[in-house]
Amino acid sequence: MATAHALADRAGAVILPHFRTDLTVDHKGGAQFDPVTVADRDAESAIRALLSETFPEHGIVGEEFEDARPDADFCWIVDPIDGTRAFIMGQPLWGTLIGLSAHGAPLLGMMNQPYTGERFWSGETESFFARGLGQGGETRTIRVRPCPALGGAILASTAPELFARTNCPAFEALARTVRLRRFGGDCYNYCLLAMGQIDLVVEAGLKPFDIMPLVPIVERAGGIVTTWEGGDPSRGGRIVAAGDPALHAQA
Amino acid sequence: MATAHALADRAGAVILPHFRTDLTVDHKGGAQFDPVTVADRDAESAIRALLSETFPEHGIVGEEFEDARPDADFCWIVDPIDGTRAFIMGQPLWGTLIGLSAHGAPLLGMMNQPYTGERFWSGETESFFARGLGQGGETRTIRVRPCPALGGAILASTAPELFARTNCPAFEALARTVRLRRFGGDCYNYCLLAMGQIDLVVEAGLKPFDIMPLVPIVERAGGIVTTWEGGDPSRGGRIVAAGDPALHAQA
Repeated sequence: MATAHALADRAGAVILPHFRTDLTVDHKGGAQFDPVTVADRDAESAIRALLSETFPEHGIVGEEFEDARPDADFCWIVDPIDGTRAFIMGQPLWGTLIGLSAHGAPLLGMMNQPYTGERFWSGETESFFARGLGQGGETRTIRVRPCPALGGAILASTAPELFARTNCPAFEALARTVRLRRFGGDCYNYCLLAMGQIDLVVEAGLKPFDIMPLVPIVERAGGIVTTWEGGDPSRGGRIVAAGDPALHAQA
Repeated sequence: MATAHALADRAGAVILPHFRTDLTVDHKGGAQFDPVTVADRDAESAIRALLSETFPEHGIVGEEFEDARPDADFCWIVDPIDGTRAFIMGQPLWGTLIGLSAHGAPLLGMMNQPYTGERFWSGETESFFARGLGQGGETRTIRVRPCPALGGAILASTAPELFARTNCPAFEALARTVRLRRFGGDCYNYCLLAMGQIDLVVEAGLKPFDIMPLVPIVERAGGIVTTWEGGDPSRGGRIVAAGDPALHAQA
């Protein structure tokens, strides 16, 4: 846990000077615009350097570089900037994701938003939030809220572009049943769900590093995260997260 | 200007204790979910009370209560929480909008985000941004960025629900030509445009208090805001804002 906090601090210190600057944005390739910046790459390099010093035998899987020892007993899963699109637009809804799996199962997760000074993370049996950690900010337990029916639910999702033609009808059918559907948010939405502010997050096309670090934060706050078929979410793909298990089943 | 800053401070102090609490959300009526909370109503009441003391002869037009002297020479246009949907979800992309018109023309505009401590406003010939004003935060001039072609542009819009069936094809045709289209943001997007982070904001169905306080912020940062037909934006409706005049014409 101390290492996770140190990684979040280090990444935040690297990223923040680049936020809202005149940054070169590269396109990673593919049909859709997939931006990456020097902030993403430098933050992941900083995380990898610190992990190599601290736990040289651990594995590292990150968004921007090659996997290192991904089959190690302990493996860190890192997305230096989840929400690079929000980042390049100057919106503060991106975050650094840091996860650790033990023998293939999620052990801990952390999301750090250095501009707002917010951090969300999972402990052994609870999840936590702090703002201004290290500057007098208090840590508090967070918890999902009850919301047993779709008609009362707030549904968040990052963008309609996530839903390929085959997934779109299912998503739109769900969106028609909820109280409020809202786009935008990336990792931030899962943390707000763990905090009891949002009831449902539904997405598709996620990579493992987009979701695995968020799974323990949601689960230990009392929520549930699976694939659309109800399976293990930690490999990414089509994801449904809910604060209330009854809502998850309905969704 | 001193009064505008005082109104923003007062509204922020009223709203912030309600953010991310278990707030009752009322539906204002109509076909789409239109939320309002005690935070919206109390913040507007606080603004109206302060204005009545300071400038009893001025007009006040706000989102939550009846117009008062809307034809006065000087009229304040106020939206206590622009982005109530983001507010009730716990996202920090909402803001308090404060505008002042003189003889019907926008004189000054301000957007205040009390959770992040950010404030954007227009002076006579420039626009400004400060974070942590009153706590040592520095004020700096903001400026739009050049972006003469749609193919290089970042387009932001609050939600697809803004576009009624008749407006949707035009918006989608535009969205297909840009580098990145992103939903979510409300007033925050216009401020990021004024700051040179976003190139285009396109919306529909806006009310006067949703846009009028933002017009001087965008214009005095070098941008352009009109209706889709190129007319006066301060009555709301279908709005296109651009940082680069050439981009505005293309859009």
